[in-house]
Amino acid sequence: MAIQTINWVKGKVRIIDQAKLPLKFEYLDCGNVEELWQAIKGLKVRGAPAIGIAGAFGVALAAANITDKEQPEFKRKLNDAIRYLASSRPTAVNLFWALKRMQDKFDKVSCLGQDKIRKILLEEAKAVLEEDKKSCRQIGAYGAGLIDNRDNCITICNAGALATADYGTALGVFYRAKERGRSFKVYSCETRPLLQGARLSSWELRRNHIDVTLIADNTIAALMQREKIDKAFVGADRIASNGDTANKIGTMGLAILCYYHKVPFYVAAPSSTFDFSLDTGKDIPIEYRGEEEVTELCSLPVAPGGVKAYNPAFDVTGNKLITAFITEKGLYYPPFKTSLKKLRMAYE
Amino acid sequence: MAIQTINWVKGKVRIIDQAKLPLKFEYLDCGNVEELWQAIKGLKVRGAPAIGIAGAFGVALAAANITDKEQPEFKRKLNDAIRYLASSRPTAVNLFWALKRMQDKFDKVSCLGQDKIRKILLEEAKAVLEEDKKSCRQIGAYGAGLIDNRDNCITICNAGALATADYGTALGVFYRAKERGRSFKVYSCETRPLLQGARLSSWELRRNHIDVTLIADNTIAALMQREKIDKAFVGADRIASNGDTANKIGTMGLAILCYYHKVPFYVAAPSSTFDFSLDTGKDIPIEYRGEEEVTELCSLPVAPGGVKAYNPAFDVTGNKLITAFITEKGLYYPPFKTSLKKLRMAYE
Repeated sequence: MAIQTINWVKGKVRIIDQAKLPLKFEYLDCGNVEELWQAIKGLKVRGAPAIGIAGAFGVALAAANITDKEQPEFKRKLNDAIRYLASSRPTAVNLFWALKRMQDKFDKVSCLGQDKIRKILLEEAKAVLEEDKKSCRQIGAYGAGLIDNRDNCITICNAGALATADYGTALGVFYRAKERGRSFKVYSCETRPLLQGARLSSWELRRNHIDVTLIADNTIAALMQREKIDKAFVGADRIASNGDTANKIGTMGLAILCYYHKVPFYVAAPSSTFDFSLDTGKDIPIEYRGEEEVTELCSLPVAPGGVKAYNPAFDVTGNKLITAFITEKGLYYPPFKTSLKKLRMAYE
Repeated sequence: MAIQTINWVKGKVRIIDQAKLPLKFEYLDCGNVEELWQAIKGLKVRGAPAIGIAGAFGVALAAANITDKEQPEFKRKLNDAIRYLASSRPTAVNLFWALKRMQDKFDKVSCLGQDKIRKILLEEAKAVLEEDKKSCRQIGAYGAGLIDNRDNCITICNAGALATADYGTALGVFYRAKERGRSFKVYSCETRPLLQGARLSSWELRRNHIDVTLIADNTIAALMQREKIDKAFVGADRIASNGDTANKIGTMGLAILCYYHKVPFYVAAPSSTFDFSLDTGKDIPIEYRGEEEVTELCSLPVAPGGVKAYNPAFDVTGNKLITAFITEKGLYYPPFKTSLKKLRMAYE
C-alpha cells in the first residue's frame, strides 16, 4: 500500500482528495481548521478511522494556528476548535473518540508553555495515526484467516486504505489474505449515492491486484442467487455495546441478503469504532445528507426538478445479522453481549 | 394520463424517447424495423407491455415496408422481420407473446392480397395496444382496493404509463387509488444502473400529483426500519407457471427485504406477462447488458478504467416472496400452483 491517505506535512494536514478519485489523484493541504472541517463534511477525507485521525490532526492544527499568548484565550479557542471539528459529521464515533483523546491530553498539559502544548498535541495526533496503522495490520491478520482459496467475497463502500491510515479494515483483510497467497474474488457494491465502492474500493483493489468486479447495489440478491457468494466483509462507523453496527447506507440491506442466503457477514473495525456508552444501535445518530446527492449525479440531474429524496448516509445493522467482528484484538463472535464485554475490558 | 408512450402515427411507430426523460420530452418516429429494434435495444421504449406493443407495431411496419410483389418473398421477409424483432431483448415475454400473436394472424391471412394483409396486421397491432389499455385499467381497479389511506408504498423501476399503453401496471394501482380519493405516499427506488425509477417513475408520479420520494436502491432496508412501509407494488417482465417472477434488477432484493420486514409484496402484470410454458423461474432467460452501464453514468466514468462489472438487467423473485399477483382478471393469491392454473384457463 503505497498511498498515504492522511498525514502531517509541513504544518498542514495533507489528505488525498477523495471526491476527485478515481479521475484525478490529488493531494489537498488543509492549513486551518475550517478547511479541514470542509474536507471532512465534503467527504474529501472519509472513512471512520481516517476521520478520527483527521480530527486529531485538526486539534494539532488549531493549536499551531492560535496566536493568543494569553493561556485562557488559547485554551478557549482550542476548546472551540474541538467542538467545531466535532460538528463536521455525526455518525462515525472515531471522530469523537479522537477528539476526546486530544482533549484529555490537552487538559493534562494545558499548564505548560504553548510551544510545548503544540508539540505534545502533534505527537498525540501522530500517535493516533501510528496506532491506526498498527490496528489495520492486526485486523488484516485476524481477518485473513477467514478467507479460503476460491472464495467469492463481497464488500460495500470503502473500508480500505483510503478510509484509514494504512491498510484498511475490511479491505485490509483482503490485502493480508492476498499476501498470504490466497486466491479469491471480490465483488464491490458501487454504493450510491456517492459511489465510494465504484470510485474508491475498485480503484484500491485493482491497484493491489485483487480480482474485483463492480456491481450496482441492487444486484446483490441476483448475484447471490446466480454465483456462490461465500463471505461479506464490511467496515463500520459506530458499533454499540450489543454489536448493532452503523455503517454506510446499504450495509443493512447487504446483511439481510446475506442472512437470507446464509452468507457469513463480518464487520472489520478497530476498537475506536466501538461506542460502549450506547447499549444498542437505536441511539446512534444518523447523518442525513442533501437530497441532491440522490437527484443529481456528477452535478447532472437524473430526476425531475423538485422531486423529494430521502438520503440517510448510514444504516444500522442489527447484531443478529452479524457473524463476527474482526478487531485489532481478535475475532469476536456471538453472543456479543458477553464477547464484546471482553473487548471493552481489553480496550479500557 | 395524457401521455401516449407508443402509437401508430402516419405509417410510423411513434414512441416517447425514454432515454431522454426527464430532461427532454421528445417523440421518436421509427420508420423501419431496424430503427424500432434499436429503440427497443436502447431502452428508448421499455417496459414489458410497451415492448410487446412495439413488437406488434414492428410487424405491421415490416409489412408496410416490404415492397416485393411475390408472395413467398413477402412472407419470407416478414418472417425474417419477426425473428429480428424477437432478437432485440430476451427477458420480457410480452415481446414474444405479441410477435407470436402477429405471426399467427399473418399465417391465417397470408393467402390474401398484400394490402389486405398490411391492413389486418396493423389492425391486430392496434388491438394489442387497445387491449393493453383496458388491461391497465382493470389492473388498476383490482389493485387500488389494496391501498389504504396513509399507506407508505414502495416501487422499483417504472411499471407505469411509460411502460404500457395507458395507465401502467404497478403505478396504475397508485393512479386508480388516487382517483378513488386515497391519500398515500410512494417511495420510488432509483433503479440503477439506468435509473428508471428516478428518471421515469418519479416524473410520472409527480405529473399525476402523487406524493413521491426518491431513494437510492440501497436505502430500502433503512427506510423499512425507520419509516413504516406498508406495501410494495412492482411490475414484471416474465412470470413462470409457479409464480417465479423476472423483473428489473433489484426487485428480488426488494422482495427479500419486504419478506424480512413483513411488508406485503404485490406483482402487477397483464396475463401476457405470464409464460405458462415455463414451470419455474430458473428457465427465464436473463439479459446481461454492457458493463459501461455500471462503470459510467451519463457517459462520465465513475469507476477506474478497465474495472469489470456484472450487469444483469433482471432478477428472478421466488414465488414464496410474493403476496399476490394483480392481473386484469383479478387478484391471485398462493398457492400459486393452483391459483395461476385458473388464470391460465381464463387466459387460454
